[in-house]
Amino acid sequence: MNISILAVGTELLMGKTLNTNATELSKAINHLGHGVRYHLTIGDNPERLSQTLEFLLSVSDMVITTGGLGPTQDDLTKETISSVMNKSLVLDVKAHEMMLERFKSFNVKMTENNVKQSYVPEFSTVMYNERGTAPGFISENNGKYVAALPGPPREMRHMFENSLKPFLIEKSDMVIVSEYINLFGIGESSAENKIDDIISAQTNPTIAIYANIGQVSLRVTASASSEDLAKKLLKPTIKKIEERLNEYIIGYGEKSIIDYTIEALMDEELSLSLAESCTGGMIASEFVNFPGASNFFDRSYVTYSNQSKVDMLGVSNNTLDEFGAVSRETCREMVEGVFSKTGSDVCLAVTGIAGPSGGTEAKPVGLVYIGVKIKDQIKIKEYNFTGDRFAIRKRSLLNGLSMILSGIKDL
Amino acid sequence: MNISILAVGTELLMGKTLNTNATELSKAINHLGHGVRYHLTIGDNPERLSQTLEFLLSVSDMVITTGGLGPTQDDLTKETISSVMNKSLVLDVKAHEMMLERFKSFNVKMTENNVKQSYVPEFSTVMYNERGTAPGFISENNGKYVAALPGPPREMRHMFENSLKPFLIEKSDMVIVSEYINLFGIGESSAENKIDDIISAQTNPTIAIYANIGQVSLRVTASASSEDLAKKLLKPTIKKIEERLNEYIIGYGEKSIIDYTIEALMDEELSLSLAESCTGGMIASEFVNFPGASNFFDRSYVTYSNQSKVDMLGVSNNTLDEFGAVSRETCREMVEGVFSKTGSDVCLAVTGIAGPSGGTEAKPVGLVYIGVKIKDQIKIKEYNFTGDRFAIRKRSLLNGLSMILSGIKDL
Repeated sequence: MNISILAVGTELLMGKTLNTNATELSKAINHLGHGVRYHLTIGDNPERLSQTLEFLLSVSDMVITTGGLGPTQDDLTKETISSVMNKSLVLDVKAHEMMLERFKSFNVKMTENNVKQSYVPEFSTVMYNERGTAPGFISENNGKYVAALPGPPREMRHMFENSLKPFLIEKSDMVIVSEYINLFGIGESSAENKIDDIISAQTNPTIAIYANIGQVSLRVTASASSEDLAKKLLKPTIKKIEERLNEYIIGYGEKSIIDYTIEALMDEELSLSLAESCTGGMIASEFVNFPGASNFFDRSYVTYSNQSKVDMLGVSNNTLDEFGAVSRETCREMVEGVFSKTGSDVCLAVTGIAGPSGGTEAKPVGLVYIGVKIKDQIKIKEYNFTGDRFAIRKRSLLNGLSMILSGIKDL
Repeated sequence: MNISILAVGTELLMGKTLNTNATELSKAINHLGHGVRYHLTIGDNPERLSQTLEFLLSVSDMVITTGGLGPTQDDLTKETISSVMNKSLVLDVKAHEMMLERFKSFNVKMTENNVKQSYVPEFSTVMYNERGTAPGFISENNGKYVAALPGPPREMRHMFENSLKPFLIEKSDMVIVSEYINLFGIGESSAENKIDDIISAQTNPTIAIYANIGQVSLRVTASASSEDLAKKLLKPTIKKIEERLNEYIIGYGEKSIIDYTIEALMDEELSLSLAESCTGGMIASEFVNFPGASNFFDRSYVTYSNQSKVDMLGVSNNTLDEFGAVSRETCREMVEGVFSKTGSDVCLAVTGIAGPSGGTEAKPVGLVYIGVKIKDQIKIKEYNFTGDRFAIRKRSLLNGLSMILSGIKDL
């Protein structure tokens, strides 16, 4: 089915609330083999609701509404849907009993305006609300459906999982399967250039490109009548992409380069220590955010000042004087310093000019040296990154991870 | 003006990306005295784009589009807008030069599909992109406007602030003035409870509460026919809020606690060194992201393993054995260790259990000790934070900053 999602709530148009419901529902709907045609958001205004509902029903098989089911005066979603679907509102006895029970358990007196919440359009499938008072429902008219869900995400999510999802599974004759191919070391448009003709030639599977600072992912998606068939459809396209982009592929699945690096360290049982100047703890923090970090991560020397490089890592004053803090030589002494202090299997050092000031013609903003020592191998690389201070630091982090990853692969 | 926001991008309908742009823009538009009528999201489909653009223009004074300005084949927003607005596409020389410059500075060869990005609808106001390659534009036809912004939030935000916001201010007959009151040490709902009656009683100025992990800000906004008048309206409300929340106010303006901390360190010319266990470099990284960090920041000892606490900071094995790594005693030795190694004016140490595992009944997940030494004063505080691993680490960071701030105030 082609499904549209209609969010009702003035707070969304005021920018007070982020519409996470539409995103969550879309992910689930696509996963179940249906398509999402439109997201639409309107305020608490019955006339606009009725107008947009009619429009969306004219271009979709089903409209899922979120919000506007509450007890207050401006909650008019249900009344409007009933009128558009040509139904009367009737009291649902079970919903009413559940609500009485709920108020009793909370020891709160039920007010008159709550009673209206137990009404649903006649002949509809009621979706009972175990997390709140307002029931949802699925109403049908001339082969088109409207499903009404509550607005608060935890009520919405629970009702979707328990009541709407089974309905959507029953209505689906397609299975959608996606594979992610994660790239590193290539930009978004260069990646697209290399597979331009493959993208143009495909309709099933489809190929989508996603980019974040320094990382590019391709999502290949096939739909078929069974999972096996969809997977079979994926294979030749994935193979073609692999042939073109082989050198940039770092892995598959919904993962990023930090996940791969942590996996590689854990698989090979390698310990890790760092020395960070311009990244200033960013790399350490990324590793420490992983709950099992103590399995491999020992420490980081965040040596921002020159003196700290001398004190903490034994970088020589001569080297700093002669070559400067941002140099291949200092980077080498940093990584050697980490190793001599820790004996860690993998040692990484980063020193660079993150800007916006501090650059010279010989050493411009964006110049970064990254050194990795894995077992007996030391590699120092020079990079010239672009972007603002945060982007340069982030690219240093990502390329440091990439150097660790390829170093481990070469073991 | 009545404005609608149209997001273009299949990834939004797939549920892969959250539409934060619509929320951010709505907040800003309302703030400038305009109203938001609809949010609409569609995939990369020219026919649907053209259809919905026509609908939105029929019910709004202006449509702001986000996304679809990129170099790839499915980026067709610009072409479709031009056709709906009855304009031809023309090459914008400045945009083209900026793009050439950008590719040159990245040392990347510009590919053919990038050239189309420099085209804009004729007679439009071009909004140049300082964060990416695709320019935006504002196009007018029969008194209705379409403004096209790029999809990536950091490009969108920058272009909105620099180019679209001035246009919207000019079109507004109201002057809107806001003041931010930044709080620390109080939760969102407690803050709201304390000023509930002030919020309910106000229509101009209005009061909005913003909360992020550990930080709460109040925005008080008044609209009037002149800036002076709006400022005059703000004063009594701000005074009332100050009376109620005085002890939690850390400052004013669009600033966060890291800004105040850096200001205080620089004003007092104090140097800073850190020892981080559970925060794992997060605090250092926050300071290093500030371009003038070298004026005060010396180093951080990211001592994640027990051995690193002994090696790097001289924490005694006895203390670790007797009290554990997460204890007041270890925290004290960490902060003393930082001071004896660096002599920095301000030394901060953090050790805690960030979870999700590793907690015991005596030392549950969320237990964090933070020690600050400023001049001759050492203060160690015990915290019990809630939330996931990231939230516990973030709260440790924020409360560490707060301890530094109040320590400097007490000097």
